[in-house]
Amino acid sequence: MIKKYTIILLVADKYGVLTRISGLFAKRAYNIDNLSVGRTNTPGVSRMTVVVECGDDLVEQIREQLKKLVDVIDAEAVIEKPAVLRELMLVKIRHNGGGSAHIIEAINVFRGKVVDMTPESMIVEITGEEDKLDAFLQYMQCFGVLEVSRTGTTAMLRGNGN
Amino acid sequence: MIKKYTIILLVADKYGVLTRISGLFAKRAYNIDNLSVGRTNTPGVSRMTVVVECGDDLVEQIREQLKKLVDVIDAEAVIEKPAVLRELMLVKIRHNGGGSAHIIEAINVFRGKVVDMTPESMIVEITGEEDKLDAFLQYMQCFGVLEVSRTGTTAMLRGNGN
Repeated sequence: MIKKYTIILLVADKYGVLTRISGLFAKRAYNIDNLSVGRTNTPGVSRMTVVVECGDDLVEQIREQLKKLVDVIDAEAVIEKPAVLRELMLVKIRHNGGGSAHIIEAINVFRGKVVDMTPESMIVEITGEEDKLDAFLQYMQCFGVLEVSRTGTTAMLRGNGN
Repeated sequence: MIKKYTIILLVADKYGVLTRISGLFAKRAYNIDNLSVGRTNTPGVSRMTVVVECGDDLVEQIREQLKKLVDVIDAEAVIEKPAVLRELMLVKIRHNGGGSAHIIEAINVFRGKVVDMTPESMIVEITGEEDKLDAFLQYMQCFGVLEVSRTGTTAMLRGNGN
């Protein structure tokens, strides 16, 4: 069954590692839905979260191939385990003075935060799972979405596992 | 002067574009500090935010080179302009029952959110500019940081520009 799998990678913080990883996905035509890379608590080690759309037989193959790449320290597929998945989105929304009370109401429902405002537009910061961000975006379409910027998903297993 | 520059890229959502971009950085040994890619409001177009550490003469060169790549629609360097920069971080922190009041207090000061808890550890979600996340992480080291996952920065110009 095709669904979205989240793969957590620990990689050495070196030139070329991102090229090797994205090259593997491109060569095999695996479809990356979104991706994020950031520093960890260990100097020289970055953590990458890749969301990929594929069948469940394929995700294990991808994980094994990723583990074999130079500078990849570990690769773990998390969809089956209880995990915290989070993404951050910035959305620039058009508003025309009068209509903004409705927008602010919706932003509160979704627990978003207004982080910039001009007489014509505002920037909203919102975090959550992908579905929640999609729902917010869809609701905002009726006001006029000027710009969207998403970080991609980052993930962490629940409990004490790491 | 060496500092951190944020480059916003609009790219076609195709296999290979990430490889081309990361390849450019690797070949020239430009140091990517962090990176995020997510979908935009336009089907088939993704938005990538790359934070790169380099001199101010170099960032213009990098931008020009990125713009010439196949499937790169636009590249904009934002550090000089007023922009909203945001990153999301998940941190798993060790706590031993008694000490957790101090941790919760600090989480409130940084406006973080506890999103998972066991008797031994908790996961905190926190968003903000890189410096704020670094400061939170540093403060938490005295309690015991078990795991860190950061999305990398995403950016949007303030006002009506896009």
